Amino acid sequence: MKNNKAKDILKLGLPKGSLQEAALAKMAKAGFNIQVSSRSYIPYVDDDQLSVRLIRAQEISRYVAHGYLDCGITGHDWVVENGSDVHEVAEFIFSKATRQPARWVLAVPEESSIKSPKDLQGKRIATEVVNITKRWLRQHGVKAEVEFSWGATEVKAHELVDAIVEITETGSSLRANRLRIVDTLLISTPRLIANHKSWKDPWKRQKIETLALLLRGALEAESKVGLKMNLEQKNLDRLLRDLPALRNPTVSHLSLPGWVAVETIIDEKVVRELIPRLKAAGAEGIIEYPLNKVVY
Amino acid sequence: MKNNKAKDILKLGLPKGSLQEAALAKMAKAGFNIQVSSRSYIPYVDDDQLSVRLIRAQEISRYVAHGYLDCGITGHDWVVENGSDVHEVAEFIFSKATRQPARWVLAVPEESSIKSPKDLQGKRIATEVVNITKRWLRQHGVKAEVEFSWGATEVKAHELVDAIVEITETGSSLRANRLRIVDTLLISTPRLIANHKSWKDPWKRQKIETLALLLRGALEAESKVGLKMNLEQKNLDRLLRDLPALRNPTVSHLSLPGWVAVETIIDEKVVRELIPRLKAAGAEGIIEYPLNKVVY
Amino acid sequence: MKNNKAKDILKLGLPKGSLQEAALAKMAKAGFNIQVSSRSYIPYVDDDQLSVRLIRAQEISRYVAHGYLDCGITGHDWVVENGSDVHEVAEFIFSKATRQPARWVLAVPEESSIKSPKDLQGKRIATEVVNITKRWLRQHGVKAEVEFSWGATEVKAHELVDAIVEITETGSSLRANRLRIVDTLLISTPRLIANHKSWKDPWKRQKIETLALLLRGALEAESKVGLKMNLEQKNLDRLLRDLPALRNPTVSHLSLPGWVAVETIIDEKVVRELIPRLKAAGAEGIIEYPLNKVVY
Amino acid sequence: MKNNKAKDILKLGLPKGSLQEAALAKMAKAGFNIQVSSRSYIPYVDDDQLSVRLIRAQEISRYVAHGYLDCGITGHDWVVENGSDVHEVAEFIFSKATRQPARWVLAVPEESSIKSPKDLQGKRIATEVVNITKRWLRQHGVKAEVEFSWGATEVKAHELVDAIVEITETGSSLRANRLRIVDTLLISTPRLIANHKSWKDPWKRQKIETLALLLRGALEAESKVGLKMNLEQKNLDRLLRDLPALRNPTVSHLSLPGWVAVETIIDEKVVRELIPRLKAAGAEGIIEYPLNKVVY
Amino acid sequence: MKNNKAKDILKLGLPKGSLQEAALAKMAKAGFNIQVSSRSYIPYVDDDQLSVRLIRAQEISRYVAHGYLDCGITGHDWVVENGSDVHEVAEFIFSKATRQPARWVLAVPEESSIKSPKDLQGKRIATEVVNITKRWLRQHGVKAEVEFSWGATEVKAHELVDAIVEITETGSSLRANRLRIVDTLLISTPRLIANHKSWKDPWKRQKIETLALLLRGALEAESKVGLKMNLEQKNLDRLLRDLPALRNPTVSHLSLPGWVAVETIIDEKVVRELIPRLKAAGAEGIIEYPLNKVVY
Amino acid sequence: MKNNKAKDILKLGLPKGSLQEAALAKMAKAGFNIQVSSRSYIPYVDDDQLSVRLIRAQEISRYVAHGYLDCGITGHDWVVENGSDVHEVAEFIFSKATRQPARWVLAVPEESSIKSPKDLQGKRIATEVVNITKRWLRQHGVKAEVEFSWGATEVKAHELVDAIVEITETGSSLRANRLRIVDTLLISTPRLIANHKSWKDPWKRQKIETLALLLRGALEAESKVGLKMNLEQKNLDRLLRDLPALRNPTVSHLSLPGWVAVETIIDEKVVRELIPRLKAAGAEGIIEYPLNKVVY
Repeated sequence: MKNNKAKDILKLGLPKGSLQEAALAKMAKAGFNIQVSSRSYIPYVDDDQLSVRLIRAQEISRYVAHGYLDCGITGHDWVVENGSDVHEVAEFIFSKATRQPARWVLAVPEESSIKSPKDLQGKRIATEVVNITKRWLRQHGVKAEVEFSWGATEVKAHELVDAIVEITETGSSLRANRLRIVDTLLISTPRLIANHKSWKDPWKRQKIETLALLLRGALEAESKVGLKMNLEQKNLDRLLRDLPALRNPTVSHLSLPGWVAVETIIDEKVVRELIPRLKAAGAEGIIEYPLNKVVY
Repeated sequence: MKNNKAKDILKLGLPKGSLQEAALAKMAKAGFNIQVSSRSYIPYVDDDQLSVRLIRAQEISRYVAHGYLDCGITGHDWVVENGSDVHEVAEFIFSKATRQPARWVLAVPEESSIKSPKDLQGKRIATEVVNITKRWLRQHGVKAEVEFSWGATEVKAHELVDAIVEITETGSSLRANRLRIVDTLLISTPRLIANHKSWKDPWKRQKIETLALLLRGALEAESKVGLKMNLEQKNLDRLLRDLPALRNPTVSHLSLPGWVAVETIIDEKVVRELIPRLKAAGAEGIIEYPLNKVVY
Repeated sequence: MKNNKAKDILKLGLPKGSLQEAALAKMAKAGFNIQVSSRSYIPYVDDDQLSVRLIRAQEISRYVAHGYLDCGITGHDWVVENGSDVHEVAEFIFSKATRQPARWVLAVPEESSIKSPKDLQGKRIATEVVNITKRWLRQHGVKAEVEFSWGATEVKAHELVDAIVEITETGSSLRANRLRIVDTLLISTPRLIANHKSWKDPWKRQKIETLALLLRGALEAESKVGLKMNLEQKNLDRLLRDLPALRNPTVSHLSLPGWVAVETIIDEKVVRELIPRLKAAGAEGIIEYPLNKVVY
Repeated sequence: MKNNKAKDILKLGLPKGSLQEAALAKMAKAGFNIQVSSRSYIPYVDDDQLSVRLIRAQEISRYVAHGYLDCGITGHDWVVENGSDVHEVAEFIFSKATRQPARWVLAVPEESSIKSPKDLQGKRIATEVVNITKRWLRQHGVKAEVEFSWGATEVKAHELVDAIVEITETGSSLRANRLRIVDTLLISTPRLIANHKSWKDPWKRQKIETLALLLRGALEAESKVGLKMNLEQKNLDRLLRDLPALRNPTVSHLSLPGWVAVETIIDEKVVRELIPRLKAAGAEGIIEYPLNKVVY
Repeated sequence: MKNNKAKDILKLGLPKGSLQEAALAKMAKAGFNIQVSSRSYIPYVDDDQLSVRLIRAQEISRYVAHGYLDCGITGHDWVVENGSDVHEVAEFIFSKATRQPARWVLAVPEESSIKSPKDLQGKRIATEVVNITKRWLRQHGVKAEVEFSWGATEVKAHELVDAIVEITETGSSLRANRLRIVDTLLISTPRLIANHKSWKDPWKRQKIETLALLLRGALEAESKVGLKMNLEQKNLDRLLRDLPALRNPTVSHLSLPGWVAVETIIDEKVVRELIPRLKAAGAEGIIEYPLNKVVY
Repeated sequence: MKNNKAKDILKLGLPKGSLQEAALAKMAKAGFNIQVSSRSYIPYVDDDQLSVRLIRAQEISRYVAHGYLDCGITGHDWVVENGSDVHEVAEFIFSKATRQPARWVLAVPEESSIKSPKDLQGKRIATEVVNITKRWLRQHGVKAEVEFSWGATEVKAHELVDAIVEITETGSSLRANRLRIVDTLLISTPRLIANHKSWKDPWKRQKIETLALLLRGALEAESKVGLKMNLEQKNLDRLLRDLPALRNPTVSHLSLPGWVAVETIIDEKVVRELIPRLKAAGAEGIIEYPLNKVVY
C-alpha cells in the first residue's frame, strides 16, 4: 500500500558551495548517500522518497518559505535575514568543547573611536546581512547607512566604511585584520527548517522527523565513543557512585563468577580524565571504540 | 612441521593500473598489507606464504591458466575474453543498493538505424573485447566486422565505426556521448580464480580458501553495521516479530532486572528505516558502530 | 579546589617538521586536539592544563633538560646525541610485525674496503649525530674524523667522505644509493621524557603519567581489533584450549539456552589465521570491529 | 620639484577574486608589479605613486564614484548595474578572433513557452543584475518580478523561477544546462574608469592616461608578433602590394648589395597564412618573435 | 571564390592520451589553437578549414589509411606496426643535442643467456608491437612465440616471458628494471602522414603542406635563438671567418660611422661557446632573444 | 687537440633543497640544461666538460675549499660562516628595484629591553650561523651564549632564548612573529666561488670565467627588455638628449627617406615612464620584446 506519487517525494534543500561537502558528509552519516554529478542539477540520492537540491545557504529559507522546497538545512542567520516564515524542526548544536557557533558581530578598526552601538549614528556600515543589521540599529535607536557588501568585508573596514557586520567563530580573522568587536548581533546555528504546508502533511512530517532523528543521531556520535571494561562485581557500586559520567551503563554478568562487563556511551572529551580513574577503581581490559550513530 | 619451501608460497595476481588502489585496499581490509615500491617489481606483503604480482586486469586470467600465477583477482569479462581455463573460487557481489555490476553493451549513436543485433549484418564494430563480441554475433547468426580498439571507443561510434561494444556501470558516459544501448553482451563481477593444478594441491587450496573467506568477510562488512540497544524484556518478542530485519540478534540479560541488551549485525541501508521503529517499540540507548569484517 | 595557577600548566614539546603531523595525530587519538595556526607560535590545545610547543626533534631533549619544557616526545637518539639529563617516562614500541624501529648505522659504498669498525682508522665520516658517532668510535678504539652533515648525507658517501652514519628503518634508501651497512650504532624508539624537577612535582607527575597512559592506549589500539562471535557452550572449553590467542575473553550467556557470546581484543595480525579456525570450531556470526584505545 | 604628498598618489581599484590573477598579470605586463600579502589588505606595488586596492568587481565602480578610489578596472556591466557616475577612460577590446565579450542574456529552459520579452509578463526572473534587468523590462513595457540571485543562477531556471538573466561568453554553460537564450540585455567589456574629480586633477589625469597607454600596449602585444625576413630588393614592391597585411614594414638595407631586411609587427592569427606566401614571394630567413608591448 | 563545402575541410588526427598535451602545444606554436571540451568529442580549432580528432597514437595511421582522416601526426613505429599504406609528408627530427629519438629494443634480464637475436629460437617474447617483432624475427630467420602485452611489459621480462620488445629513449627505465638491451628493432620519429587520395586533392595537399611548413617552423624555433651585436666594420670579416656558426648574418650599417649591427639565428646550444669568442673578437652589446618560428 | 681527460672536467656545486629549482633555472638560462634523476646522485648536464653536484647551500664552500669541488654557487654568508678560504669569482647582484639582498639580523621580541648590541651581555642567542654571530659579538666586546638552532628559530625568541640571529629579506616574517630588528650582522648575495688551485689551472679558470659570463648575461636579461621604434631623423638628436636612458641606441636608416629605426636595450623598470615620453617626442611603432641574455 504505497502512498500516491505526488505525496511520497520530499524535496530537501542543502547548502551549495563551501558548506556543501560538510553537509553531504553529515547526510551520509545519517544514512543518505548523495552523489553530485556535473551533468545534472539534480543530485542522486539513494532514497527514492527524497529529492535533493543544492542551493546557496543564503537562499534556502526563501525557497522553503515559497514552497519550492519542503524542507532544508541552513543557518538560523539566513532565516532571519530573509525574514522567511518557516517551521523550525531541529537545531543542531555542536558539542561546546570542540566548536563554537557562528556569530555575526559589529567590528571596527582597533583604533576606531566607535565603542558602542550609539557611536554608529550617521556612520556607514558594510555587511552581507543588511536586514539583520538594520533591525539591530532600530533596536538601539541608531540611524546609520547600511550598505550591501559582496564579500571580503573585513578589508573595507579600514577605509571604505566606518564599521562592518561580519560572521566569525573564533574572531581570529578579525584580529588578523586588526579589527575590534563592538557587539554581537546574532548567534547562528544550523537548523532543519520546513515549509508550513509540508509540515502539516502527515507523510511529509513523518519523513522530516525521521530525517531530523537520524541527523541528530549522526551528530551525537561525532562527540561520543563506546567504552567497555571488566570489573569485579564488588567494586561496581563504588565505581558508579564515584563516576557519575558513567551514566546508565549496561552491566552484564561474565561467565567468570564475581565479574561483570560494564559498557557505556560517553563523551569523547571526558575519556582522557576517566581512564586513569577507572584503572584506579580496579577496571581491567578497558577499550574505547568509535560510533556511527547514537539515539537515546 | 613446516611444508617444504617449493610448496608454501602462493602466487597471487592483482590488477595493475586504475583498479590497483582499490584492490590493495580490499586486501588490507582482509588483513594483508601490501606495499608497492618503485624500486622492485615484486610488491612487499606481510605474509611470507604469499607472493603478489601486479598485472593488467586484462591479462591476469591468462597467467593463472598458464600456471605462472596460482590464483588472481580479475573480472569475469577477461576470463571469458581470454578463454582462460581456470577454476573459479569466489564471486564478489557488491551489495545491490550501492553499486551496479559492470556490463559490456553494444551501443550505437542515438540516431542510428540499428535497433537490434540483426541490424548489425555487414557493419563494423570497435571494441576492446573482440572475442566476446564475435561469440555474441555468432549466437545471433550475424556477420559483422569486429575491430580491436585501444580505448576511447565511445568517440569512434559517431564516425569511425557503426557500433561499439563498451563497458558501463550506470550508462551515464554513453549517454553523455549521445550513444544508445542496443543489447547487453556480458555482465561481469570480480572473481577470485585459481589455476587447476594449484587448486588440487591441498596446501595451496586451503590458503586460497582462507583468502576467499577473509576477502568476503571484508566486503560484507562494507555494507553492514553493528546495532545495539537496551529493551524491557516484555517488549522483546513483539520487537523481533515486527522487525524481521533484526535476524538472529544476540540477547543478553542486563543487571537491571527485566531489561535485556539486544545486539545485531545489519545492512547499513535499512538502519535509517529501522531506528524510528525501534524507538517506537521502546528501545533505548540505540547505537550504531562500524565493522571491519563479518563472517557468518 | 583548583591547583594554583603556576602549577597547573604542563609544558609539552612535540616534534616540528616532518614528524609533526604524525605526532599531532597520535595526540588526537590519545584525546588531545591540537591546532596549529600560522598566526601564533603557540598551538591551541583543548586542555587548559597543557601548553604545547612545536620544536625540532633534534632539540626537544635540550629544552626539557633546561627546564623550558616540562616534558616532550622525541627519539631516544637525540636524547643521547645531546647528552640530555632527563627522566624517561615511557617508550613507545610499535608492534614488531608492521614497523621496525629506526637505527643509526655506519654505511659505506658497496665496493668500499671498509668491512668493520677498525677499518675506519684515519678516515672521514659525515653524520648528523656527531656525538653518537664519536662515542662509538671511542668504544672501538678507533680514531677518525667526524664531520657534521646538514642532510643528504647518503650522497656524500660516494665521493666526499669515506663513510656515513645515517638513520634507516628498512635499509632500502641505503641500498638504493648502493651503500652497505657495516654496523649499527644505536637503535632509537620514540620516548616521552620529562625534566627531573617537573617529575618531582606531584601534580605535574600525575599529568605526565596520564598522558603516557593515554598515548600508550592509543598506540596499542592501532594494532588491535575487537572480535566477537557466538558459540554453543559445549564447544567453548575446546575453543579456548586450542586457541590461546583468545586470551581472557569476555564470555556472556545468551538468552538462547546453551549458547554464549565470546568477545576479545586481539592483534589485528592474527585475525587472518584465526577466523578459519574459529569457523572450524563452530563459531557463528564472527565480527571484527575497530578500536580507538586499549588499556589493560 | 615633486608634487605635494596629497596629490601624487593615485588610488587604483582592481577586481578581487576570480578575476584577480588575470588583472594582476595584465598590470605586470604593463610594467607594474603588484604583490598581494596575506598579512596586509594593501598590496605592494613597485610604484610609489600608485596605491592598489583589491575589491570585488561588482563594487569597484561604486567606490570610484564615491571618490574612495581615483580609478579602477571593472566591467561595463557593473558600472551600469550600480548606476555609477564615473568617467570612462578606456575600453579594452580583446582581439575578436580569440575571445568574445561577455554578454548578459535572458535565458529560459529549452522547452519553455517564453520566446520573446513580452512573454515574461507576470513571471519571476532571478539574476545578479537586478537593475539592468528591471531597466530592460521597462524598455519593453513588461512587468515581471525580479529577484536577486546569489549565484548558481542557471540551476534555478528549471524549477525555482521562470527565467534568468545570466552572463555568458560562448553560451556553452547555458547549453549544458539545457537553457535557451531569448535576448541579450547588455554587452560588457573591461573598462578603466575614473572619478570625475580625479580626472580634472592634471597630475592624476596624466597618471591615469599613462596607465591606460601601457595597459593598451600590453594587451595589443598579446595578439601580435614580430616578423622579420630577408628579401631581394627587386621583389620588395610586389611583396608589399600583394600582402597588405605587411602594413608599414621597416625596410633596411643589408650589407649584401641588392638585399633588404623587412620587419613588421603583425596579428599572430595571420602568420599561418602569410608564411607560405612570403616564401613563395622569395623571402628567406623568416623568423617570428614574441612581443611584450606594442604602442603605435 | 571559395572552395565548395565538401572540399575545404581537412580532417587531422592528433594523438590522444599521454602525448596529447605536447601535440596540442606544438599545434599552438604553429598557429592553431585547439580546445578540448569534456562536452564534445570534436575539439574546437580556430581554423574553420581544419577539423581535429583526438585518437590513440597506435590507431591514427589506420584511420588515415582508411580515409576517415585526411592526415595525422603519429610515430613512424605505429605506421609500420599497422602496415598502413599512407603518404609520409614530413618527419619531425628533434635537435640531436637535447632529445633522442624513441627506439623499440629487444631486452632481456641482465643475467639472461640471450646475447643475440639467434638465441631467441623457441623463446617467448612479450610486446606491444607484435608485427614489428615478427618481421624482425623473420629477417633473422628465428622462430619464437610473440605475445601481445597490454603494457607494464618490463615487469614481465623477469618471470613471465624470456624477452620483451619495448620502447625506450635513454634506456634508464630498462636499466632500473635490470634489463639489458640485445638489439634495436626500429627507430621512430614523429611523422605527418596523409591519405593518398587526400594528397592528390590540390586544395588538401596545399593545406597539408602549409601545416607541415608551420609545424617545422615552430619546432625549429625551439632549439634556436636570435643573436644581435654591434661591431666595428673592420673586425667583421675576421669574425665571420673565425666563427662559421654565424651563418648568413644580417649585417646593417649603424648611423655611427664604421660600425655595423650583426644579427643572426643560431642554435641555442652553441651560444654558450660563442659568446666568449664574440666578446674576444670585439663585439659589443650582445643580446640573445627568443623565437616563435624559424622558416628558412 | 683535446685536453687530457683529468683536466677537462669542471666540478660545480649547486645548492640542494629549497634553492635548487631556482639555481637550475638560472643555469638553464645561461645555457646549461641539468636534469636531476631519482636514480643517480650525479645530475645529468648537457656539457661533458661539466660535472654537477647538488649539495646543501650551507656546505658548498667547505667542499670547494677542500678541493672536492672546483667551484660552486652559494651565498656569501655561508662562505663567512664556514671560514672557507676560496676565490670569489663573481657576485650576482639582483636589480635593486625588484629584490633585496638577504640580511642576517639580530632580532628580539617587540617588548624586549634589548635595544643595542651591548644589551646582549650575558644573554642567550639562538642562530644557524654561530660563527658569524660570535665574531660580531667579539667586535662589539660583548659576551653572550650562542646556541646552534636547527631552524624555526623565530619561534624560540619569545621563550627559549633572549635573541635570535636570523635571515630576512623584507623583515615581514619577523614582524609577523612580533620580533624587532636590533642590528644587521651581514648582508649576503649569491657568489660564484672557486678553489684556489682550480683557479690557477688555465683550462679550469677559462671554463669558470665563461660560466660567470653566461650566468651574468642571463641574470642581466631578467631585468632588461629590448625597445624598438621608428622616428624622423630630424627628431633624433632631441630625443637622445632628452632621454639619457636610451643609452647607446642602434640607429639604422630606413628605406623611407628621412626616417630611422632606433633600437636599444633598457631596464624593464623605466619603460613605463619612457613610453609616454617617446610618443610625445614623435616615436612611432614602439615595441618592447623579451630577452634571454645581455652581455655588454
